Amino acid sequence: MDEFAVIERFFRGRGAARSDVHVGVGDDAAIVSPAPGRELVLTTDTLVAGRHFPAEGFPAHALGHRALAVNLSDMAAMGAAPAWALMSLTLPEADETWLEAFADGFSSLAERLDVALVGGNLAVGSLTVCVTLAGQGERGHLLKRSGAREGDALYVTGRLGGGTAGLRALRAGAPIDHPQVRTYARPEPRVEAGRILARHAHAAIDVSDGLLGDLAKLLAASGGLGADLSSVAMPLASGAKLEDALGPSDDYELLVSLPEAEGEQVATQLGCEWHRIGCITAGPGIRLDGEAVMAESRGYRHFS
Amino acid sequence: MDEFAVIERFFRGRGAARSDVHVGVGDDAAIVSPAPGRELVLTTDTLVAGRHFPAEGFPAHALGHRALAVNLSDMAAMGAAPAWALMSLTLPEADETWLEAFADGFSSLAERLDVALVGGNLAVGSLTVCVTLAGQGERGHLLKRSGAREGDALYVTGRLGGGTAGLRALRAGAPIDHPQVRTYARPEPRVEAGRILARHAHAAIDVSDGLLGDLAKLLAASGGLGADLSSVAMPLASGAKLEDALGPSDDYELLVSLPEAEGEQVATQLGCEWHRIGCITAGPGIRLDGEAVMAESRGYRHFS
Repeated sequence: MDEFAVIERFFRGRGAARSDVHVGVGDDAAIVSPAPGRELVLTTDTLVAGRHFPAEGFPAHALGHRALAVNLSDMAAMGAAPAWALMSLTLPEADETWLEAFADGFSSLAERLDVALVGGNLAVGSLTVCVTLAGQGERGHLLKRSGAREGDALYVTGRLGGGTAGLRALRAGAPIDHPQVRTYARPEPRVEAGRILARHAHAAIDVSDGLLGDLAKLLAASGGLGADLSSVAMPLASGAKLEDALGPSDDYELLVSLPEAEGEQVATQLGCEWHRIGCITAGPGIRLDGEAVMAESRGYRHFS
Repeated sequence: MDEFAVIERFFRGRGAARSDVHVGVGDDAAIVSPAPGRELVLTTDTLVAGRHFPAEGFPAHALGHRALAVNLSDMAAMGAAPAWALMSLTLPEADETWLEAFADGFSSLAERLDVALVGGNLAVGSLTVCVTLAGQGERGHLLKRSGAREGDALYVTGRLGGGTAGLRALRAGAPIDHPQVRTYARPEPRVEAGRILARHAHAAIDVSDGLLGDLAKLLAASGGLGADLSSVAMPLASGAKLEDALGPSDDYELLVSLPEAEGEQVATQLGCEWHRIGCITAGPGIRLDGEAVMAESRGYRHFS
């Protein structure tokens, strides 16, 4: 199959059927109608084989899910509603079985979260998936990394360290549908929780690069504040150790800074676990159980 | 430098300074304000080293330009105004000299065409550049591939075959600033012409995959019409032969279907060369000087 046949068969019309899509896959560009008075939220993320997922033994279906999920997690961290996705897929050869499974993994998640695939692009090369996601949100009610305030409580959605624990289990030979592996292979982006939190929180970030590293970014963006964390409060995922939860872990949970009263108030609305793990302090640096653990680290160093 | 330092230094604040950008590079996602009542136009394209540009000897500055230009050409083919770009860059190592030149090439073109770089992503892997571009256009006045009508005249902007001729010259050792090579290395997307044509044309496509192949796509999208082309009317680029103009050539010119009277009327407004090369016919197939040249080919076959 040539590029156009592959796009026609595996990409066109995938994901949710949205009435605001006028031209989808199959023209020079897509045409969609933004909702009046909303802000547009844009994010892009790339998965490279052997770098962001195992080059061998990672199923195409899981990769399709994951490529969209990592972008949905960024959308969730802004408190926006995802809408339209574009996919650039670079792969060594057009294997139809692989493509069908990949497209299914992508589409299942896209349909569930009301995302239409409106643009696709295919190239020959080493396996790389680049997804761009556009969403919408209310003016003045989108979440940035900046905005955390002294005295805010710090909460996380879900559990931490599951990405690292799941990858460890996968490498040790656990099957792809093992519950721990599933947490790594098919992260569940916190889109609904993010949209609810957008009306309550001061700041948020997704912890895709590790809790400590991403917390440091949130603190830096909020003007050099600090944080106190409690190790016993950390909600550890199945099979995860404390260091898995603190370091780079591909967890795709939200780290949220907001007044504790608001945090308690939204707890039952979010539809996922929600744990208070610490608070924002005026002084810089991050302390765990009172001991300094980080002065200025910035998370996963892709080029170090 | 780690990923975040590279993004901070080479990506943040690049391109045009647009007042509709509220959050650019440096958060989980970008926040921008779409203009009221406009449609949103979205496109993405990927350049893979050794596939879409020479793996050796292609300057970073030209690659930065080209990665944006191929997307701008899609935007031009819709008649939309480009606004916001996101870049996913995968490269083997963070070479600062290379990155600075790449960012400069991208930014120079972006500034000139009022495009803000609002999102960036960096990964380690073989050299691949994926750019996504969002633009805006008037409802009811965006150009699709469909809509061509029997009796329309077919026009092209600029000259054809320059991409192939330029690549040939580059491979033969011509320097990057040689006029022919420049046509290949730094295509000039027809953004302004596309915006003017959006109010006049029935259908348009950019000929990035070759005149015959892209014309076939336009004809198929317009309900199976045909076309008569004239070889003497083809505007050949410097160093280009007729077959360069007809086949895959990385030309990034617009192929436009519209009434001849409209074509003549807009000629002086477009700011670029504008040549009538044929007309739309009711019967299917493409004829060159009266002889059938194509029944159903679909251009550059990336996987053939």
